[in-house]
Amino acid sequence: MIEPVELIGLAAGFLTAFSTVPQSIRIIRVRQAAAVSAGTYFMLLGSYILWLVYGIIQGAISIIFWNVIGIILGAAVLIMKLFIWKD
Amino acid sequence: MIEPVELIGLAAGFLTAFSTVPQSIRIIRVRQAAAVSAGTYFMLLGSYILWLVYGIIQGAISIIFWNVIGIILGAAVLIMKLFIWKD
Repeated sequence: MIEPVELIGLAAGFLTAFSTVPQSIRIIRVRQAAAVSAGTYFMLLGSYILWLVYGIIQGAISIIFWNVIGIILGAAVLIMKLFIWKD
Repeated sequence: MIEPVELIGLAAGFLTAFSTVPQSIRIIRVRQAAAVSAGTYFMLLGSYILWLVYGIIQGAISIIFWNVIGIILGAAVLIMKLFIWKD
């Protein structure tokens, strides 16, 4: 049986990993990213990468899993901001 | 002595907690937040709150510490987006 506290961690990991998706959708919809901060997405991406390294060292599959997803989804925002909808 | 893996966790926690600061600065500088996604900040805020609960249950001071900071800084972006620089 999975412990209740691990369910909270699972939900938290899900939100962390997928939090950048609405931002991607928003940029595509408004067709610009002027107010979106590249710095924030560099830092988020850096955090996902460091958590991935942390998860690999600790052998924690769930940390590895969520952060691989987070890197891919977070990179999408950064690519749109820096290369597609440049200011 | 602090273990190297804990230093990685510390750096990751720092980046996670402070990642929303450049976004706040950006909104103030460009004086609008049209392309910023409220959904992303609701999800980020939700993740900080769930990680805080997780940290409290586990008694993990560093998780509690970073996520209290994350909640405050993340809420700042959401407040600006929803109440100050409305579309």
